[in-house]
Amino acid sequence: MDYAAAFKASVARVRAEGRYRVFADLLRKKGEFPKARYRADDGSMREVTVWCSNDYLGMGQSACVTGAMKQAIDDVGAGSGGTRNISGTTHYHVELERSLADLHQKESALLFTSGYIANQATLATLGKILPGLIIYSDALNHASMIEGVRHSGCEKHVWRHNDVAHLEELLRAAPLDAPKLIALESVYSMDGDIGPLEAVCDLADKYSALTYLDEVHAVGLYGMRGAGIAERDGLMHRFDIIEGTLGKAFGVMGGYIAADAVICDAVRSAAPGFIFTTSLAPVLAAGARASVEYLKSSSHLRDQHQERAATLKARMKAAGLPVMESATHIVPVHVGDPVLCKRITDALLDEHGIYVQPINYPTVPKGTERMRFTPSPLHTDEMFDQLIAALQAVYARYANARVA
Amino acid sequence: MDYAAAFKASVARVRAEGRYRVFADLLRKKGEFPKARYRADDGSMREVTVWCSNDYLGMGQSACVTGAMKQAIDDVGAGSGGTRNISGTTHYHVELERSLADLHQKESALLFTSGYIANQATLATLGKILPGLIIYSDALNHASMIEGVRHSGCEKHVWRHNDVAHLEELLRAAPLDAPKLIALESVYSMDGDIGPLEAVCDLADKYSALTYLDEVHAVGLYGMRGAGIAERDGLMHRFDIIEGTLGKAFGVMGGYIAADAVICDAVRSAAPGFIFTTSLAPVLAAGARASVEYLKSSSHLRDQHQERAATLKARMKAAGLPVMESATHIVPVHVGDPVLCKRITDALLDEHGIYVQPINYPTVPKGTERMRFTPSPLHTDEMFDQLIAALQAVYARYANARVA
Repeated sequence: MDYAAAFKASVARVRAEGRYRVFADLLRKKGEFPKARYRADDGSMREVTVWCSNDYLGMGQSACVTGAMKQAIDDVGAGSGGTRNISGTTHYHVELERSLADLHQKESALLFTSGYIANQATLATLGKILPGLIIYSDALNHASMIEGVRHSGCEKHVWRHNDVAHLEELLRAAPLDAPKLIALESVYSMDGDIGPLEAVCDLADKYSALTYLDEVHAVGLYGMRGAGIAERDGLMHRFDIIEGTLGKAFGVMGGYIAADAVICDAVRSAAPGFIFTTSLAPVLAAGARASVEYLKSSSHLRDQHQERAATLKARMKAAGLPVMESATHIVPVHVGDPVLCKRITDALLDEHGIYVQPINYPTVPKGTERMRFTPSPLHTDEMFDQLIAALQAVYARYANARVA
Repeated sequence: MDYAAAFKASVARVRAEGRYRVFADLLRKKGEFPKARYRADDGSMREVTVWCSNDYLGMGQSACVTGAMKQAIDDVGAGSGGTRNISGTTHYHVELERSLADLHQKESALLFTSGYIANQATLATLGKILPGLIIYSDALNHASMIEGVRHSGCEKHVWRHNDVAHLEELLRAAPLDAPKLIALESVYSMDGDIGPLEAVCDLADKYSALTYLDEVHAVGLYGMRGAGIAERDGLMHRFDIIEGTLGKAFGVMGGYIAADAVICDAVRSAAPGFIFTTSLAPVLAAGARASVEYLKSSSHLRDQHQERAATLKARMKAAGLPVMESATHIVPVHVGDPVLCKRITDALLDEHGIYVQPINYPTVPKGTERMRFTPSPLHTDEMFDQLIAALQAVYARYANARVA
């Protein structure tokens, strides 16, 4: 058996499909975000503007977050040194879970090492806690939810993206007394559209289903206190489990669920991905709590963020760029071909100091390859000018890209 | 469908089996490890000695680690703000992967957000990269490896713990040209015994199998430069994939694999748990690299660590305590009953300020419930005296516990 050849063939397939990833080696300069230093393959460094960060508000640079982290390092050191059960629960974890429960107005919250694991472990475990569970999953749910549903071993039905008629059709086909779970996202990160939250809650009531909402691209960004779209729309209490991340708008790292105490307790007691892993480093819990509390107390950055996104979309449209429909802060610009997408983003980086990743399959369906811009409150009008001029120059060169 | 009742029943089952977990709320005091402040349910605080941390060397308190972390926060801020592919690769990640590849003398290394995810994602993905792969997994492999093997969808065979004759029997039964992978750990964390590394490599050669070695409880602790048991025994080059953690002896958080460049590249390009998750926070990568490099350069802490573990074992035996056989730094003490185990550890905490978790099912098989002590270089002779006196007092009270 020639293993090396098999691994090479696997990588070659990825390359042949034009979706081989080259990671850009970056260093932010604290206080100057979205500027960063980019290290080219030849080792040379140059300044770029980051246009594709999920640190949507720049909280990763905020003094309240970095100050809390440095204080935690001074007080307790680096890692937690254990699983939550074996010496790895610190008061930072306890306080952050309280802060997150309060954010979502739930009895309890449960921390995971990432949003990925929060989704994967919770969904997989619900299938074990509730025998006979049937899961209804939106077709565009994130990879971590798909993995969780798959590993739950449950009967699953995928409903067409945002199509509640299709969801109801599937729900109606199952026995009324069978346990059911409907899983969806609030903000879909690659298109920037929003799930039909209220209609899903109505169907959940009608068919007696649990509701699971992934708010990772909304927490910190929507609602009076930054709890997400469900808060904004007055629907938080209708979702049984809300999942979020500390690694995007909150600017740190980690994930969580918020729910009734008994749900968190049951998941906590049964999920291998929660039980058998070193807990979040206290330094991250400290920084995340500072960020969550700050964004509860002020909508200033949220307002700025919405203004920046709306302005960028309007300016791109006015400039004739193929900006895709989006109801949120995410600004996707169509390309439609993986090789071209890479070529355009390479030109933006090399010639204009603009860093945006090509978004190719499997992150988005083939044929919908795109760039995905995430303007933050720290992206200035001048940066918008530079971006649009650069995009126009590069699109003019690759004219066939303009098939929106 | 009464969901609340179902969740309650799930928790009640855990309670009925005596394995309901109550997390101890702790705060270390940097510079005074293994001392920590423990917050009781009534909110009162008292000082305890931590005896069950996996921060085996106290590196989480080391100035070289905490200094590097604070510097990174000052330089670049809190989180990475993206997946590895979408703005989340920083020079800290690149340098840490180089440092880890060098540690294990491999071409390449790949970071994950935890050791759990490193195992789960890599093993699950190998099954997809190598069609028809048959996985041979030691019966006591960690939960994260079991999850990875399960999610690989591969044919799998579980060989009796450390039983190479059984492993060979299973290997012999498969077609010689079928792709195969043997997965094991070097140090088994709950018993402290060591896997048959050399015999496994010999069988892998004979039956043309890949080898996967989990060194999470050995990295930093064994070998000239702290690469683990495979380094100590001169076997590193014979393992195709070595998996490790940054969250135990290195004192921080995160996990990794080290392997041929093409293997890392193939896993990197196909594993959802690597691709679709916010990358490790730069602050963690900076701290981990400082820790890895320090432990490469000095065996001082490793030597102290071995002395402390050997001394504690000898003193416990001399005191007539039911210390279990262990070839490593892990010092398990037998109890054999989950309720008793909890009662003993509660008494140690409440009456003697000694914090050690009861280790119950599913972490260990039923009937082998135990305490697991992990003396570090910072545990003094005086702490040993206190521990042994306390154990004798508590065991005398619960005499039936002494059925080793």
